[in-house]
Amino acid sequence: MSQPISRFPVPELSGLPEDLRERILKVQEKSGFVPNVFLALAHRPAEFRAFFAYHDALMEKSEGLSKAEREMIVVATSAINECLYCVVAHGAILRIRAKNPRVADQVAVNVGKAEITPRQRAMLEFALKVARGGAGLDDSDFATLRYHGFDDEDVWDIVSITAMFAMSNRLANGLGIPPNPEFYGMGR
Amino acid sequence: MSQPISRFPVPELSGLPEDLRERILKVQEKSGFVPNVFLALAHRPAEFRAFFAYHDALMEKSEGLSKAEREMIVVATSAINECLYCVVAHGAILRIRAKNPRVADQVAVNVGKAEITPRQRAMLEFALKVARGGAGLDDSDFATLRYHGFDDEDVWDIVSITAMFAMSNRLANGLGIPPNPEFYGMGR
Amino acid sequence: MSQPISRFPVPELSGLPEDLRERILKVQEKSGFVPNVFLALAHRPAEFRAFFAYHDALMEKSEGLSKAEREMIVVATSAINECLYCVVAHGAILRIRAKNPRVADQVAVNVGKAEITPRQRAMLEFALKVARGGAGLDDSDFATLRYHGFDDEDVWDIVSITAMFAMSNRLANGLGIPPNPEFYGMGR
Amino acid sequence: MSQPISRFPVPELSGLPEDLRERILKVQEKSGFVPNVFLALAHRPAEFRAFFAYHDALMEKSEGLSKAEREMIVVATSAINECLYCVVAHGAILRIRAKNPRVADQVAVNVGKAEITPRQRAMLEFALKVARGGAGLDDSDFATLRYHGFDDEDVWDIVSITAMFAMSNRLANGLGIPPNPEFYGMGR
Amino acid sequence: MSQPISRFPVPELSGLPEDLRERILKVQEKSGFVPNVFLALAHRPAEFRAFFAYHDALMEKSEGLSKAEREMIVVATSAINECLYCVVAHGAILRIRAKNPRVADQVAVNVGKAEITPRQRAMLEFALKVARGGAGLDDSDFATLRYHGFDDEDVWDIVSITAMFAMSNRLANGLGIPPNPEFYGMGR
Amino acid sequence: MSQPISRFPVPELSGLPEDLRERILKVQEKSGFVPNVFLALAHRPAEFRAFFAYHDALMEKSEGLSKAEREMIVVATSAINECLYCVVAHGAILRIRAKNPRVADQVAVNVGKAEITPRQRAMLEFALKVARGGAGLDDSDFATLRYHGFDDEDVWDIVSITAMFAMSNRLANGLGIPPNPEFYGMGR
Repeated sequence: MSQPISRFPVPELSGLPEDLRERILKVQEKSGFVPNVFLALAHRPAEFRAFFAYHDALMEKSEGLSKAEREMIVVATSAINECLYCVVAHGAILRIRAKNPRVADQVAVNVGKAEITPRQRAMLEFALKVARGGAGLDDSDFATLRYHGFDDEDVWDIVSITAMFAMSNRLANGLGIPPNPEFYGMGR
Repeated sequence: MSQPISRFPVPELSGLPEDLRERILKVQEKSGFVPNVFLALAHRPAEFRAFFAYHDALMEKSEGLSKAEREMIVVATSAINECLYCVVAHGAILRIRAKNPRVADQVAVNVGKAEITPRQRAMLEFALKVARGGAGLDDSDFATLRYHGFDDEDVWDIVSITAMFAMSNRLANGLGIPPNPEFYGMGR
Repeated sequence: MSQPISRFPVPELSGLPEDLRERILKVQEKSGFVPNVFLALAHRPAEFRAFFAYHDALMEKSEGLSKAEREMIVVATSAINECLYCVVAHGAILRIRAKNPRVADQVAVNVGKAEITPRQRAMLEFALKVARGGAGLDDSDFATLRYHGFDDEDVWDIVSITAMFAMSNRLANGLGIPPNPEFYGMGR
Repeated sequence: MSQPISRFPVPELSGLPEDLRERILKVQEKSGFVPNVFLALAHRPAEFRAFFAYHDALMEKSEGLSKAEREMIVVATSAINECLYCVVAHGAILRIRAKNPRVADQVAVNVGKAEITPRQRAMLEFALKVARGGAGLDDSDFATLRYHGFDDEDVWDIVSITAMFAMSNRLANGLGIPPNPEFYGMGR
Repeated sequence: MSQPISRFPVPELSGLPEDLRERILKVQEKSGFVPNVFLALAHRPAEFRAFFAYHDALMEKSEGLSKAEREMIVVATSAINECLYCVVAHGAILRIRAKNPRVADQVAVNVGKAEITPRQRAMLEFALKVARGGAGLDDSDFATLRYHGFDDEDVWDIVSITAMFAMSNRLANGLGIPPNPEFYGMGR
Repeated sequence: MSQPISRFPVPELSGLPEDLRERILKVQEKSGFVPNVFLALAHRPAEFRAFFAYHDALMEKSEGLSKAEREMIVVATSAINECLYCVVAHGAILRIRAKNPRVADQVAVNVGKAEITPRQRAMLEFALKVARGGAGLDDSDFATLRYHGFDDEDVWDIVSITAMFAMSNRLANGLGIPPNPEFYGMGR
């Protein structure tokens, strides 16, 4: 596909600051391709660094929520923003991390019908309220999470992952970043 | 007011990493108080750093959009998410930067009725589309911005400021951060 | 500001019927300026009289709801209709009557985050349902108000104030009446 | 039907102020029954007087919009608020004034499918924008009305009738006023 | 009225397959006129046959839900799709089957205000959730129907009638089929 | 997966009427499994026959819209109803018929971002309006389809396929029919 990677100028790898180039080469080595969001955001190195520092702090943690659960939040909340990049790219990661080829399509289309635990459903329903703005969240919403065994750090993560991808969805939709074709079939 | 600063644990200044403490003392010195978002986010130093790095890259730039215009985007888009913290805190900054005691209330309540230029209105209408998700943005939306004289870097800023505050709004609503009482009267 | 007071012809004070002129001079004496809604509605004296008769019957009562509570209903419900005139003008009156410089901004942005009593929050949540049309109101909504100690006359007032400002919001938005600049800073 | 006329106390005719009793007897003589809204609002004589003064100023005019057109606005805008009283009672009056037994059901269900003129359709589409709050009305909306031949006084009437019934709908829904059974079959 | 029966070609009765012609003549004999949906759908005989086979299987049953209740579902759910044909034509049938000249207008405007039993209200509230897509239906929705005494076959009927008219509403709106004038006054 | 095929009784193949059993064995032979909708709807043989007669009349045509385009309409419109069964099952068929492993995910998430022709995009945007009820469709919507070369029979098909799946979506959501696991990976 010859679809452009962004509505904005995309820098050459060779002209990038060393830390960005390293990060990009590392993901390419791991995945076999460079996800478009890396190249698109590289247009602004300071923002690139902040974005991925935030991303890694929330998505690469090992304690608390599992990595599959973190990706589930991303896919479910990105779907309500119709963010093709995030649903497809993080859908791929979710399938791999959950070792389940169906769950990404399920949470993208209808969280209520997904093959997940009641605890995970409560997590996603809370995340969807945050994704829609979170203005009406009240004590009972937090109590429901506690009832399902989520502690303070887990709830912070649910809020923050959803918030961070509210940003990512709008960046991908606003900058016009399409998913790489490789993502569609990964983990099927 | 004795309202808590966050639904989550708020660290003591003395126990914070040096760079966070410095940043917080600096804002206190400048404003005369510590905006609650600094103390609330300090619970997670890595996320604090990423958040303010992103914030500064977008909000402290001198070229392109004026600083008042950047704050206008924040206030208009935070209002549709009913984010009290962001509307009140950035409303204060907007009044000061625009040297206009009315414009923050105006863009918070109804962008169409604000005392702003047609160019600024086009900027805010585009930002509101991004704030609502940005899924339907098409070439004509970008053409309207070009027609009003915004260049590539300006449009990137409009998208990114809106996206970054889509995150901030959800953090403030989800973590339960109230605006400091000082903000309400600033710049009136 | 030289913004027009209305999209429609605005009469000269000297040509108005005596009762309208008296009413307008009285409010000018009290406030130091003539709120734009008086001049705009004076284009139709019969409607002016009915409007202010209704307004005074609901807003100038001393028994039951406090005057600050009546204004709170106006500000909260006008905000969902994005009525700049009503939010700003009645926000000023609310600040003065509640002797609180923050509460108007709070109920305009997010009722759930305002520094008000649980009883006042129940009142505003009921009013917001009426403001959105009131078609789904059922016995449980009325029972909630009783539980908070509102009697028949209070509930009638909540319904009627909200209904009357559903009209005012649409008049101000439809006739194009901007708030006088004086309102923005009052009671801060 | 033994459905109550209001959720609130309904006064005896004999105990009412003379002007209210006269008004009510007059409508009874003309219609053969007392529309419930008269009895329900009589609980508050001052509000009753203001309500009907406003109503008569807008609905009983002979110049400009025809009386059928005024009722059309009421029925179309009351339908989006799901106000059973206003749709049924004013539907009856519309059928009689328009001498058309179908038009009330048509504008209540779908303005776009009604047997009305393009000018009337433009009028109702504008009214529906006002009914939804009117915050986004701009010059082009007013220009469309001018194009269809509406003058300043007509447009004022369209705005004000819609605004006044935004109030009436919320009063009828909030006070719980059902339509009299007689209205359903009138003008069929 | 000379309004066209459909945006698409309408076949001559004489050129129709025998089974369609018979069906149409039968309805004409019974009603005194041919409802427009028969002529409009006759453009595609195979679809005509499937449509009416489905319709008859759901609407002409004698056990379980009464025929009036089946029509109530049609009118209430067609109203939220603003389908003039279905509201008017099935409103007529509902008035006749329920022997009540008011109930069709009531369920079309506001189910909560209709003169129906609590069991019927529960049925319609469930149907409205299905009409809006049904994605969020959960065990508690089905439990509510059981509580009101609906068995498996009743619930299937509620789901299927609503689903079938979700189709009919879109066919009538998309093909542009107006109600026959005769329907408006039937059963009043 | 041991998820039930329906919230309602599912008949044994052996007890079904001959024509249903044949149809089901035929689809099993072709696909290697029985799609759940066949077994779920077999609970009501008359409705099963009408459903598949309608389905085949619209989805198995060779002239006009291609079979891939017909499936595109199904996937795009089922996504807005969050119908997991239809998105997943027809997504599989779309991938196969379009010989494109990405297009189903694309039209399910965001029609505006899909790798389709402008003509197909116009078709889907029209279909989405029908899916949302179709009440506001006007001459300009039909003119847009003509401009893209769709003739009367094509437009009828777009309306009718969308309408038929408005029904299917509600049946699958209301009866609780999950997609067979086989569908998720087909055509990838």
